[in-house]
Amino acid sequence: MGDELDYDPMTELQRALDAADGSALLAAAEDAHYADLAHLYENLDDEKRDFLLKTIGPELATDVVAELPYPLIEGALTHFKPAQLRVLLGNLSDDDRVDVFQVVSEEAQVRFFSLLGPRDKELTRSLLKYEEDTAGGRMTTQVGRITADMTVKQAITVLRRDREDAETLARIFVVDEQGRLVGKVRLRDLAFNTWDTPIHDIMEEADEYVLASADQEEAARKISKYDLIVLPVVDEFHHLLGVVTYDDALEILQEESTEDIEKLSGIGGEQSEVSYLNTSVSQQYRRRVSWLVGLAFVSIGSGYVMYHFSAVLEKAFVLSIFLPMVVAAGGNSGGQAATMVIRALALGEVKAGNALRIAWKEARTGLSLGLTLGLAMAIFISFVLPHMQEGTGSSFDFLHLAFAVSVALTVQVFSATTLGALLPIFARSIKLDPAVVSAPSLASTVDVSGMLIYFSTVAAILGLQ
Amino acid sequence: MGDELDYDPMTELQRALDAADGSALLAAAEDAHYADLAHLYENLDDEKRDFLLKTIGPELATDVVAELPYPLIEGALTHFKPAQLRVLLGNLSDDDRVDVFQVVSEEAQVRFFSLLGPRDKELTRSLLKYEEDTAGGRMTTQVGRITADMTVKQAITVLRRDREDAETLARIFVVDEQGRLVGKVRLRDLAFNTWDTPIHDIMEEADEYVLASADQEEAARKISKYDLIVLPVVDEFHHLLGVVTYDDALEILQEESTEDIEKLSGIGGEQSEVSYLNTSVSQQYRRRVSWLVGLAFVSIGSGYVMYHFSAVLEKAFVLSIFLPMVVAAGGNSGGQAATMVIRALALGEVKAGNALRIAWKEARTGLSLGLTLGLAMAIFISFVLPHMQEGTGSSFDFLHLAFAVSVALTVQVFSATTLGALLPIFARSIKLDPAVVSAPSLASTVDVSGMLIYFSTVAAILGLQ
Repeated sequence: MGDELDYDPMTELQRALDAADGSALLAAAEDAHYADLAHLYENLDDEKRDFLLKTIGPELATDVVAELPYPLIEGALTHFKPAQLRVLLGNLSDDDRVDVFQVVSEEAQVRFFSLLGPRDKELTRSLLKYEEDTAGGRMTTQVGRITADMTVKQAITVLRRDREDAETLARIFVVDEQGRLVGKVRLRDLAFNTWDTPIHDIMEEADEYVLASADQEEAARKISKYDLIVLPVVDEFHHLLGVVTYDDALEILQEESTEDIEKLSGIGGEQSEVSYLNTSVSQQYRRRVSWLVGLAFVSIGSGYVMYHFSAVLEKAFVLSIFLPMVVAAGGNSGGQAATMVIRALALGEVKAGNALRIAWKEARTGLSLGLTLGLAMAIFISFVLPHMQEGTGSSFDFLHLAFAVSVALTVQVFSATTLGALLPIFARSIKLDPAVVSAPSLASTVDVSGMLIYFSTVAAILGLQ
Repeated sequence: MGDELDYDPMTELQRALDAADGSALLAAAEDAHYADLAHLYENLDDEKRDFLLKTIGPELATDVVAELPYPLIEGALTHFKPAQLRVLLGNLSDDDRVDVFQVVSEEAQVRFFSLLGPRDKELTRSLLKYEEDTAGGRMTTQVGRITADMTVKQAITVLRRDREDAETLARIFVVDEQGRLVGKVRLRDLAFNTWDTPIHDIMEEADEYVLASADQEEAARKISKYDLIVLPVVDEFHHLLGVVTYDDALEILQEESTEDIEKLSGIGGEQSEVSYLNTSVSQQYRRRVSWLVGLAFVSIGSGYVMYHFSAVLEKAFVLSIFLPMVVAAGGNSGGQAATMVIRALALGEVKAGNALRIAWKEARTGLSLGLTLGLAMAIFISFVLPHMQEGTGSSFDFLHLAFAVSVALTVQVFSATTLGALLPIFARSIKLDPAVVSAPSLASTVDVSGMLIYFSTVAAILGLQ
């Protein structure tokens, strides 16, 4: 085995693909991991995709297709003849099969459905009832099920029958005669107990479970919080319907955090699952344009405020030096506060009911940040600026200017921080997505208020009204 | 069991805690999940924390302490007497024990270390060699190990001895006489094969593994990509040192994405692990202040540009209406591009070597977005503005103004988008963190360039120089 350490199936695969060497390709594909094959497929041109799938055949292609980004799945399946498709669709685990049906065109749905065996038809139909982003939509029904009155030997016999089908046997669930979830055993408890031990003696309570109608994120958070390998999914009568596995949880949590990051920058729509380099310019354009155009019109509001105060600027153009800073400091500090609160809401660390505690914490944080910034600027203006900038032709001294700017800065940062913390909570309390709502409303509000705060503060303090 | 569905240990626990009812507290704690207990502990005052830990004792407290946010661990351990601490530290899994040693004060380290048994001392010392954020720093050595020449029966005998210690038996690893990793078997293959089957016949190759010195994120991404429950960790001679488990991967990936989100908003430092509500105002202040002060001084650069062009503004104050918009559009579009690329880099979807492809994609996206925005503004200015704003006293018509603003907008969005995409790639190529570097450099560059682009474009087109 030591000799094989140098052999990399993916390098060999690429070579075979370039040389159109079918038998070498098949041999390498058999050694490769399906996740690597799927990644390779994504980056091939149509002709090579076709050659790859036809060479490895439906058996080996099953896991590869299941691993592909959703938008590529239908295209991949068109490479197969109906008889091959029948094999591939039959081989898919039931949750992957449902995913396929959810993402292909209606015409393909009908065609693929006709290729399924009667049991798979039934199962697929029943799983398609659940929304894609619920625990039911994510679960697999392929789970080890035994009853409490079996012995370890009987349980092993039942499970042996299902062994290759079950997604994981790390946890095996115990159901009653109505199929309701009553407990769980670990495979190690079967392996290490004598064969006549009754399941009833070794089973534990199945405390953690999730309703099929629950959001997929709830399932993922439970798996993460309680360090579970599988989480049972039940209906409202506590019947065991299936399980969500830890690898689903990994996927769900990564999707959600990517979506959160993107929403904060005003990138819209569901995360497409296709990797960045495989999206088109027009897809990128569509996900970003509405936010940019919307915010542009909102920014005209700031422009009007500036225009409105043109008399103040005209009297002392030196004021323009600090205008962008006061406005931007609000955007930056408000954005920080919003980010902290949005992430805390997403991780379930804070609830909308805690609004007062959060506002109080952020108000104090905002005041400290505002005072620090104000002080830093006051020092800069009164000591540094006079030497750089002689004779601005204004009727006030730099000490007054420093005072006025630092007051405006403190007010702006304090109000932006408090607002940035409260906006996501408000959004959540009216059942909107905090990340989607907060970013644009914050940007628009804080820019306008920054202009207003700056001009009215400096005009009042310096007597420029 | 149906009757017990209404019973919630956490409600009962809270009641017992409020009533200072020790025996009810212990009973409820025994039914509760350690993750829930840890979450509860976090939100208690000192007196109740003490009562809770003393009541449940070191055995039950072990998992609770391991689940606590790092900054709370040392405080929690001070509630126990040395004899109890000895039990608790001995009960910890080895990776959790190393975490404890990594996060407590030096003085506590020495005291705790003296309480360990000789084997635990040796193990802890050897694990402390690895940096906290490497695969070696995250791994547990508690893994099922067998050799290829054993039979299934011998393997089960060996594993039975370790059964409660091993973090998971879902995967069992096969090593040679030097302890080098040669393969893996699944527990189900032991459970379902006859007892005289040699391990050699049922073992598979262990293709996925990670070096102990590798970044913890690499381990997490492998677990996620290949849907693994455990990933073996080896040294440079391929000796099996331990495993990183799927629940570590979940934790690592969540920490990393929270950090990425925070960095994009200029929130510094390691994510503290303490939930938002449990951080102090001064912690929040420290994580945010340097970015705000730094950016404030940078913004003065924009202010100087504006001040420099005061003559242009004075000739046509109507230009101030569109100034904030042009500047902000660059920040927004650049931020979107940076976010897409930073996330793609973090997920390993793009490499720095793809810089040209990315720049080309973003340049086209930026041009489309810029042209759209420019067109929208041109329409707004030429059709809507004249009716709102009669007699601005300027020497040019609205058609010229519309043309000038839309040209500036297109140039600003195009350049900001391209820059936003390239900055993270540049940061990665010189081994800096893309999220930390891109946000501030983008904000400062784009604001200044926006002012410059706007004033020079409108001044040139409208003849205001």
